[in-house]
Amino acid sequence: MTVPTRNTPQVATRKTDRRPAGRRLEHVYIERVTPELDGGRFLVKRVVGDTVVVGADVLKEGHDHIGARALYQGPDDATWSVAPMSYDYDSDRWYGSFTVDRIGRWAFTVEAWTDRVGTWSAGFKKKLEAGQDVLNELLEVAQMARSALRSAPSGPARASLLMTAKMLEDRRDASIERRVERVLEEDFLTLVREHFRASDLTRYRHELGIVVDRPQARFAAWYETFPRSATSPGAVTRHGTLADTAARLPRLAELGFDVVYLAPIHPIGRTFRKGKNNSLTPEPGDVGSPWAIGNEAGGHTAIEPALGSLEDFDRLVDTAKRFGLEIALDYALQCSPDHPWVKEHPEWFHIRPDGTIKYAENPPKKYQDIYPINFWCADRQNLWNACRDVVAFWIGHGVTTFRVDNPHTKPFAFWEWMIQDIQRDHPETVFFSEAFTRPKRMKELARIGFTMSYTYFTWKNSPWDIRQYFEELTQTDAVEYFRGNLFANTPDILNAYLVTGGRPAFRIRLLLAATLLPLYGIYSGFELCENVPAAPGSEEYLDSEKYQLRPRNYDAPENINADIQRINALRRQHAALQRYANLTFHESENPNILFFRKAARERVVQWVDGVAQPVPTACLGLSDVPAVSRGDVLVVVNTDPYHPQETMIHVPIHEMGLDDQQTYVVHDLLTDARYTWRGERNYVRLDPTVEPGHVFLVEPAQADAP
Amino acid sequence: MTVPTRNTPQVATRKTDRRPAGRRLEHVYIERVTPELDGGRFLVKRVVGDTVVVGADVLKEGHDHIGARALYQGPDDATWSVAPMSYDYDSDRWYGSFTVDRIGRWAFTVEAWTDRVGTWSAGFKKKLEAGQDVLNELLEVAQMARSALRSAPSGPARASLLMTAKMLEDRRDASIERRVERVLEEDFLTLVREHFRASDLTRYRHELGIVVDRPQARFAAWYETFPRSATSPGAVTRHGTLADTAARLPRLAELGFDVVYLAPIHPIGRTFRKGKNNSLTPEPGDVGSPWAIGNEAGGHTAIEPALGSLEDFDRLVDTAKRFGLEIALDYALQCSPDHPWVKEHPEWFHIRPDGTIKYAENPPKKYQDIYPINFWCADRQNLWNACRDVVAFWIGHGVTTFRVDNPHTKPFAFWEWMIQDIQRDHPETVFFSEAFTRPKRMKELARIGFTMSYTYFTWKNSPWDIRQYFEELTQTDAVEYFRGNLFANTPDILNAYLVTGGRPAFRIRLLLAATLLPLYGIYSGFELCENVPAAPGSEEYLDSEKYQLRPRNYDAPENINADIQRINALRRQHAALQRYANLTFHESENPNILFFRKAARERVVQWVDGVAQPVPTACLGLSDVPAVSRGDVLVVVNTDPYHPQETMIHVPIHEMGLDDQQTYVVHDLLTDARYTWRGERNYVRLDPTVEPGHVFLVEPAQADAP
Repeated sequence: MTVPTRNTPQVATRKTDRRPAGRRLEHVYIERVTPELDGGRFLVKRVVGDTVVVGADVLKEGHDHIGARALYQGPDDATWSVAPMSYDYDSDRWYGSFTVDRIGRWAFTVEAWTDRVGTWSAGFKKKLEAGQDVLNELLEVAQMARSALRSAPSGPARASLLMTAKMLEDRRDASIERRVERVLEEDFLTLVREHFRASDLTRYRHELGIVVDRPQARFAAWYETFPRSATSPGAVTRHGTLADTAARLPRLAELGFDVVYLAPIHPIGRTFRKGKNNSLTPEPGDVGSPWAIGNEAGGHTAIEPALGSLEDFDRLVDTAKRFGLEIALDYALQCSPDHPWVKEHPEWFHIRPDGTIKYAENPPKKYQDIYPINFWCADRQNLWNACRDVVAFWIGHGVTTFRVDNPHTKPFAFWEWMIQDIQRDHPETVFFSEAFTRPKRMKELARIGFTMSYTYFTWKNSPWDIRQYFEELTQTDAVEYFRGNLFANTPDILNAYLVTGGRPAFRIRLLLAATLLPLYGIYSGFELCENVPAAPGSEEYLDSEKYQLRPRNYDAPENINADIQRINALRRQHAALQRYANLTFHESENPNILFFRKAARERVVQWVDGVAQPVPTACLGLSDVPAVSRGDVLVVVNTDPYHPQETMIHVPIHEMGLDDQQTYVVHDLLTDARYTWRGERNYVRLDPTVEPGHVFLVEPAQADAP
Repeated sequence: MTVPTRNTPQVATRKTDRRPAGRRLEHVYIERVTPELDGGRFLVKRVVGDTVVVGADVLKEGHDHIGARALYQGPDDATWSVAPMSYDYDSDRWYGSFTVDRIGRWAFTVEAWTDRVGTWSAGFKKKLEAGQDVLNELLEVAQMARSALRSAPSGPARASLLMTAKMLEDRRDASIERRVERVLEEDFLTLVREHFRASDLTRYRHELGIVVDRPQARFAAWYETFPRSATSPGAVTRHGTLADTAARLPRLAELGFDVVYLAPIHPIGRTFRKGKNNSLTPEPGDVGSPWAIGNEAGGHTAIEPALGSLEDFDRLVDTAKRFGLEIALDYALQCSPDHPWVKEHPEWFHIRPDGTIKYAENPPKKYQDIYPINFWCADRQNLWNACRDVVAFWIGHGVTTFRVDNPHTKPFAFWEWMIQDIQRDHPETVFFSEAFTRPKRMKELARIGFTMSYTYFTWKNSPWDIRQYFEELTQTDAVEYFRGNLFANTPDILNAYLVTGGRPAFRIRLLLAATLLPLYGIYSGFELCENVPAAPGSEEYLDSEKYQLRPRNYDAPENINADIQRINALRRQHAALQRYANLTFHESENPNILFFRKAARERVVQWVDGVAQPVPTACLGLSDVPAVSRGDVLVVVNTDPYHPQETMIHVPIHEMGLDDQQTYVVHDLLTDARYTWRGERNYVRLDPTVEPGHVFLVEPAQADAP
C-alpha cells in the first residue's frame, strides 16, 4: 500500500522531532480533564447560570498527598479565578465546579501539586501514634514554616510562623513534648498550609473553552413564517408586509412562542425566477423564492420593497420585544443573478471558462436562479468580511438570532471564523444550523460553533426510531456541543406521517417535539394541519409558500392552537421540560406507545474518553435523590394516529426515589386528571382522537388518597 | 466554590488568546484520526510486522469529491511514505493501512484534499448522459490539463497533456463530439489525475506516534528465578551462582520458556539486612534481600560476588542465546545504605534535617535497609543519567529486557524520559512494569512507555472476575497501549486460591495464564506447586526466597512440568494463542466453568472517541470471515479445583462461520481427543484431578465423521 496515489501532491517533508508533543518534566501528571472536546480544539456549550463540573485524573508516584484546583476565566477577565477540587476515591478522580454567570467564551484548566504539608501531617500523626521518634518531623515542619513565612504578609502571621519555627528548632530549651504540642495546636498548621508554596505546581497541557449562551439557546419555542403571507385570505390576495407580520405577533405571543423566524425578507431575483410549485416558467406576478436573494433593490442587507422598509422592520422588532418575542432572520449565503454583488464583485463567484458565472447545479440538476459564492476566491478576505457584515448589519437592527440556510454547503472554516468573530462582540447571537446532511457533518457544524441545529426528527416517527435517535442526541458526548431544535415541519419537509395521519398526527408530533427536547418549532400551517403534498410521496407542499403567497385563516376549524398554547405554557411552568440531557426512555409493553421521563434533576455526567461517567454527587455538594423526585415529568404518547392504544408502562420508580409499595400520584398536565399509581407497571390507554398523550407530573400521594 | 484554597500558589496569570488552539483556515476538516491517544501525547503500541490501520473523518462542505492519504515514517526515515486511503460510505470514514516493518518509533498523520479531477469527471459524465451542454466542462478540464503539465516531467506525458489541452480549447477545428471523445479516452484523465496538484492539501493537526516493538513484547513465556538458589538440595546448602543458573537454562528451554528473569544479581546491603522470613534480626550467614541493592562490592552495575563475575554473567547470556532464551534483569531503583552512590552522591537521596539520609517508610512502617532515591534533587540531571546508564550498562552486556521494580514509586517523568532515551538507540529494549497500584496509575505507566505490565490476574480467580477483568484489558482502548503479562505467582504473591486449591489449582492457573493472553509467566516453585504461606491469610511464602536460599528438586513428585511443556508448545504452534485482543468470552451454563475463544483472526477495531468501531473489512482488502474459521482456539476451564464440573457451553458458531446444522470437530490439543459437535450448545465435563480444561482447535467436520 505504499505506491503513491495519483492526483496527489508529492511528499518530501522532513519529520519533526520524534518525541511526543508537549513533553515536559512534570512532577504531577494531569489527564482526561473534562469537559473537553479534542484537547480544547472545540468548545463545549453551556448556558448562563449553569454549574460547570470540572473533572481530572491527577497522577503522581508514591504516597504523597496531592492538591488540585480548577482555574477559570470569564469573558474579559484578566486573571484566573480558582475553584478548589476534591478527590473521590472510588473514581480515583478530582472534581471542582464553578458557575458561568455571564455569556461569552470562557476558558478553564486544571492545576495540581504535591501537598507537602498534608503529606507531612499524615506521616507525623501516624508516627506519634506508633510512638516513634519525631525529631526530624519537627525540624521538617519548622523548615516548611520558614518557607511559608517568606510568602506570608508581614504582621502577626509571619511573626507567629517565625516564632514557632524557632521554637521547633530549639534543641536546648523546648522539650520534644512541648514542641509536639505546639505543632498540634490548630492555628500553626493552618498558617503553614495557607502560606506554603508548592514547588511543583503543574498546569494541564490544554486550556479548554466553553461557549456560554443565553438561556434561549437551549430553551425556546420557535415559529417560522413568511411575512409576505401575513394577510388574511380574501377575494384578492394582497402581498403581505412586515406591518402585517407585526400585527400577527400578539397572537403568536399568546400561543406561547419565543422566537419568530422569518423566511428571507430580502429583494428577490428576477432572472430564472421560479413560478408556483417550483415551475421554471413563472407567470407575471409570481413572487419567486425568497431564497433567491438580491435584485436591483439590493441584496442581503436590503428589504424586499413589497414587504416594506427598514423602518418597518425596526418597528417589527420593537413590537416583538414588547410581546416578549424575538425575531430571527434567515441567513442564506447565495445570490440571485440580479444581486448587487454579482455586478460589484463578480470575482466572489465561480467564473466559468467562457466568462459566465456558474449557477448552482448538482448534475444533471440545474438551479439557474442561484449563484453560489466562491468562498475561496482570490478576494476571500473581503468576501468573508462582507458576509460577516451582513450579520452585523442585522444585529444593528436588533436581530440576535440567525437561522442559517444550508451551512453544510459553505466552508467549515468560514463558519468557525464568522461565528467567533461575531460572538466576540455579540455573545448573545444565536446561530441555528439548517444542516440536513450526514450525521458527521451535522455534528461538525455544531462543534465548530453553531448554537443549535436542525435534526432528523421529522423522519423519526416510530417509538423505536425516536428512542434510538434521542438516546444518541442526549446520552452521548454530543450533549457537550450539539443542541437539537425539533422542527415538526419546515417549508421543505412535509413528512408522510403527517400526510397520512391527519390532525391526530399533527397533535402527536407537536407533543413529541415540545417535550422530547427544550428547543422545538413549527412552520406556519402546521397549526392548521396542512398536509397536501406536491405529489404522492413528495415531501414538498402543494402550492408551496416558497413560490407563492399563502394567506391563511389561522382560526380555521380543526386548528390545534389550543394544543400549542397549552404545551407552550407547560414548558414554561415545568423546569424538567426546559432541560436537554434529562431524557430517558422506559418500557412500554405496546410498541406503538412511547414512554419517556424528563427528570427534574439532570444526572451530572462527565465524558471521559468518550464514555459517560456519573460525577459523584458528594463531589458536587448535592444531596442524594430526594424521596420523591419532585418535578419529574413522565410523557406517554400514542404514536398511532389511527387507533386507540393501551399498554402497561414501566415507571422508573426506583430512579425517582419511590419504592415498590409506595403509592404516588401522576397528574396529567394536559387534562388536569390525577391517577394514583403504585409500583412499576401501570396502565394507560390513549385515543388519538381525544388526546395524543399524557404529560404527567409526579406528585407524592395525598394522605387522603392511599 | 471560588474561595482560593489554602496551601496553594497565588494566581495572576493573564489568559492567552481565547481562540481555539490550532485554528487555521482549512478547506478540509480532518477529525478523529485513529489510532491515537490524547492527540498524539502518547504513542500507541504495535509489534513489527503488524498492519497499522489508519482511520479518519474527512469533512468538507458541498458535494466535491475528496482524496485522502496517510503519511507515515519509520525510524530514521527522512521523508514520509504514502498510504492511500479509501472511503467507506456506511461509516462515513476513510481508511488506509501500512505495515510497520522495523522496530522503533514511527510517526503518521493524514492528509486530505479536494479531488477536483474526480469531481469534474463525475459531473461531466452526468451532464453527458443528460444531454446537457459540456463546452465549459471541456474548457475546465483543459485548464486542469495545463495545470497538470506544469508538474509533469518533460517527455511524452507533458507533450500529450499540452496537445490535448490545445485541442480541447480549439473552438474552430475540433467539434464538441471529437473533444468529448478525446476526454473519454482513458489515458487522458489518467495523466491529468497523476500530475494535477491539489491546491487545498490539508494535513491533520497532530502527528501521531507508534512504538513498534519486537514480537517478544507481545508474545513470550516468562520464568522468574533467583540465581542464588540454582543449586540442588543437599545436606549443605551452597550459594548458587550464575554458572549454576546457566546450567539450568537447557531445561527451561526444553519446557518452552522464552524469557528467564533473574531476581536482582547485585551486591546486597549489610546495614539493616533482613533475616529469614523478613526478620529484622538476621543471623550471620543470612543472604539478605536482593532488592536491597549495593554494598562495598558495588551497586547496580556490579554482580554479587557470591554469584560470580561479570564474565560469568556474559557467559550466562551467551548460553541463554544458544538455547533461544533471553535473560531479563530486575531494575530496582533503590539503594541499600551501603550502596556506593550513598557515599559518592548523598545529594541523590533525601537528606533529613538532622543530616541523615531518609530510609524508606510508609508510617508507621519502616524499611531501614532501603534508601529511596530523591529523583527531584538539585543534581537531578546527573542522577537521571546515572540511572539511565545502569540500563545502558546491561544492554552492553546483552540484556534487552528489564523487569522494573515498583515503577509507581518513581516519577512518571523519569520513566517517560528514560524509556524513550534508551529506546532511541536500543528500540529492542523491553520494559516490564511491576506496577501493583490502582488502575489509573498502572495504565498511565503503560501510556508513558512501559512495554508490558503486571496485572491483577493473581487476584482474579472466579470466571466472573476473570471475564470482567479481561474484557477490560482486551475490549477497551487499553489494547492500544497496555500489554498485560500474566504472572501466575511472584515472590510477593502466593494467592489463597493456590494455597487452598493445591496441585489442581496450579494446573488451572497455568492453563488460564498461558491462554488468556500471549504474555504470561511463573516464578520458580510454581511448577512444584509450592504453596505454604508465611502465615494463614498471608500472600507471602513461608521461608521466602527473598531472604534465603531455596535450592529445589525441580523433578520432585507432583510437579507440573508436563503441563508447562505442553502448553508452551501449543502456544508456539497456534497463532491464535499469540494474539492479544482476539479474546472473547462465551456462555457456560455452569458458573464454575469459564469458556472463551481465542480467534484466529483478530477483529480489526478502531477506537473513535473511546468507542470501539469495527474497521470495514472491505477497506482492509480482507475477504469476509471464511466458512470455517480455521485456527480458532476454544478454551474451557473448570475453575473449581475440588470437584468435577459439567456444563453446556454456547459455542459462538455464527461468529466462526458455522451454521446451526453444520457439524464441526473440536480437537483437544491437550489430550488429542476429538469430538464432533453441532450447533451452539455442547456438553463438557472436566475433572480437575484429570485435566483442568480443554484447549480445542476447531476443525471442519471430516467427511467420514458426520
